[in-house]
Amino acid sequence: MTTTLPQAAPPTHEEVFVNLEGVCSARGLDSLAGRLIELRTWLEGDLAEVERALRGAGSGDSLAHQSVRHLLDQDGKRLRPICVALAARTGSGFNAAARTYAVAVELVHNATLLHDDVVDVGDVRRGSPAARVIYGNAASIFGGDWLLIDALCRIQTADQPEVLARMLEVVKEMVVAESLQLARRGKVRGSQSEYFRIIDGKTASLFRWAMFAGARAGGVDPAAAAALEAYGQKLGVAFQLVDDLLDVAGDPTATGKSLLADLREGKMTYPLILAMERDPSLVPLLEHFCAAEDAAVDPDLASRIARTMSSAGVTEDCLALATRLCREAVQTLAVLPPSRARSALESVALATPRRRK
Amino acid sequence: MTTTLPQAAPPTHEEVFVNLEGVCSARGLDSLAGRLIELRTWLEGDLAEVERALRGAGSGDSLAHQSVRHLLDQDGKRLRPICVALAARTGSGFNAAARTYAVAVELVHNATLLHDDVVDVGDVRRGSPAARVIYGNAASIFGGDWLLIDALCRIQTADQPEVLARMLEVVKEMVVAESLQLARRGKVRGSQSEYFRIIDGKTASLFRWAMFAGARAGGVDPAAAAALEAYGQKLGVAFQLVDDLLDVAGDPTATGKSLLADLREGKMTYPLILAMERDPSLVPLLEHFCAAEDAAVDPDLASRIARTMSSAGVTEDCLALATRLCREAVQTLAVLPPSRARSALESVALATPRRRK
Repeated sequence: MTTTLPQAAPPTHEEVFVNLEGVCSARGLDSLAGRLIELRTWLEGDLAEVERALRGAGSGDSLAHQSVRHLLDQDGKRLRPICVALAARTGSGFNAAARTYAVAVELVHNATLLHDDVVDVGDVRRGSPAARVIYGNAASIFGGDWLLIDALCRIQTADQPEVLARMLEVVKEMVVAESLQLARRGKVRGSQSEYFRIIDGKTASLFRWAMFAGARAGGVDPAAAAALEAYGQKLGVAFQLVDDLLDVAGDPTATGKSLLADLREGKMTYPLILAMERDPSLVPLLEHFCAAEDAAVDPDLASRIARTMSSAGVTEDCLALATRLCREAVQTLAVLPPSRARSALESVALATPRRRK
Repeated sequence: MTTTLPQAAPPTHEEVFVNLEGVCSARGLDSLAGRLIELRTWLEGDLAEVERALRGAGSGDSLAHQSVRHLLDQDGKRLRPICVALAARTGSGFNAAARTYAVAVELVHNATLLHDDVVDVGDVRRGSPAARVIYGNAASIFGGDWLLIDALCRIQTADQPEVLARMLEVVKEMVVAESLQLARRGKVRGSQSEYFRIIDGKTASLFRWAMFAGARAGGVDPAAAAALEAYGQKLGVAFQLVDDLLDVAGDPTATGKSLLADLREGKMTYPLILAMERDPSLVPLLEHFCAAEDAAVDPDLASRIARTMSSAGVTEDCLALATRLCREAVQTLAVLPPSRARSALESVALATPRRRK
C-alpha cells in the first residue's frame, strides 16, 4: 500500500509541549499551559541526557546498525522516557538507573517500530522514509532485533533483576498484542473489547513499565509505585486512543501523517468501531474497501467517515473517554504526597487528550 | 526464489547419532561408532526432558505462537542442547539450570530461524514448509521475537546474571553477523576471512554459549570452563563448515535439502569461495547467476561446480579443515580430567566432519 508523504515534520518532545501549551492557552486553560512550560524547563536536563544516549546508540556499520541509526536520528515525542524521569523524580530523583531505563524504554519502543514497519509495509515513519524503505526489510528486522537486545543489556546493567524480568514480560505482551492485531487485520467487524485488549498489550504495557521502572530507580515505596503503574496503564490507553483518533480525525498539517493510515492497513481502531456502531451503513463500505485492498481511500468514503465522526459525536466521545482515563490516571496519584513531579505527571495526563500531534 | 521439495525428512538427534554410527561403522571406525551408541543411550533421559520442554513451549493461540509451535514441532538435531548437557556433565551434572539453558539455547536458535526464513525468503525448513509460508512473514517475525524473549525469560529464572549477560552479547553478535551476510549477498568475490567472521558470529557464538552455560550450571572450574568454551567455538565453526559443504556437495536424499540453496540465496560459503579460487573460470559464471537472480541453478553450472569440488580437491580440503578444527576442539579438552562427559564431547567432535545430514 502506498502512503502519501506527510505534510509536516514529526514533533519533538519540546514541540509537543509547546503545541500543548498553545492549545491550552487558546482554550483559556492558562494554568495548564503554564504548568507545561514549567515542566519542559524542569526536565530539560534529564531529556538532554536521554537524547545524547539515544544519539550514541547503535553505532556500527552493519545494515542492522544503519537501520537503527536512521530511526533514532529522527525526532520523537520521548513520552516514555518522560514517564520514567517523572516517576523517578517522585522518589529520590533522576539517577543513573532512571537514565538507563529512560533510554531503554525508548529503544524498545523503536525496536517495535522497526519490526512493525516491515509487518505493516509502512513507508513513512516520523516524517521520513522508514528504515525498511532505505535499507530493506531484512535490515529493519535485524535492526529491531539488535535494538531490543541492546535495551535489555542496558536494563541488566542497572542490576535490578525484577525490572528486567518485567520488561521481558512486557515485550511478550507487546508481541502477542501485535499478533492479535495482525490476525484481525482487514476484519471490519471488530469488537471494542478486542481493541482495548490490543492497545493494552501493544502500548499501555510499555507505559506501565516506564512508570514501574522509574519508581524502582527512585526507590519509591510499594503503594506509591503501584499508583504510578496504574497511572502508566491509564495514560498508555488514553495516549493510543488519541493517536487512533488523530489518524481518523486529526489535522494532517499538525500530525505530519496522512489520514486513515490505520484503515488502509486494515486496522479497526476504536474511532472506526464507534463510527460503524453509530452509522451501520459504514460497515459494508469499509468491508468493500478492505476486501479491495486498495492503496488509497476514496474521497467519498473519507468524507462519509469524517461526517459520522462529527455528526454522530464519535470524535467527541473518543475525546471524552480519553479525558476520563486521564482524570482517573490523575486520581491514582492521590496516594502520593504533593510534589513537583506529581504535579508534572498530572499536567502530562491532563494535556494528553488535548494533543494535536 | 523457489526451492524444490526436499527428498527426506530432517534428522532427529537420534537419527543423527544412528547415521554417524553407520558412517563410522562403514569406514571401519568401529570404536567411534560404539562410542556414539553409548553417548546416545547415556543422554537419552536428558534429551527427553529437553524435548518435552520444547514441545510445551509457545502455547497460545496468536499467530506468533502458531509460528513458534509449527517450527518447534519439527524434529531437529538438538546439537546445542547436547553441548549444554555434556558441558554440565563434566561438572556436577545435568541439573535444573543446565536443563533450562539446554532448552533456551534451542529456543534462541529457533528464533533466529524464524527471522532468517523471512530474510532469506526460505520456503522449506526441517523438511516442512517454513512457518512464514503457512502463517505469513509477519507471524514469523513476531514468532521469532516472542521465542527470543521466552528464551531470555527462562535464562533469567536460573539466576546466574553472567549467563544471561553473555547470551545478550551472543544475540547481538548473531544479528551483526547476519547483517554482514546480508550486505554480502549476491557479491561473488567474497573473502575467506569475511566468511569465517560471519560463521563465527552467526553459529560458533551460540555453540560457545552452550558450552559456557553448561559449564556454569555444572559449577565447572574456570580453567575447564575456558577449555569447554574454546571447544564450543571450534566445534561451531566446524559444524557450519560441514553444513555449508553439504549444501554444495552433500547427498540430498540424506540431508533432506536441495543442493546449492546458499548459492541461490547469493551466499558465498567457504566451499564456493575455495572452488572459485581453484577454478577462477567459475567466477564469471557465478556472477552471471547472481546477477540474474534466477530461481534455479542451471544443471550445467551445478555439474561444473560439482566437478571442481572433487577434481580440485575442494571437498577434501573443506573436510580436512573441519577435521583439523574438531581435533583442536578435542585437544582443548586435555585440561579436563578424564570422564565419560569429556569422552562424549570428543566423540561428538570427531563425528562432526563425518556427518552426512
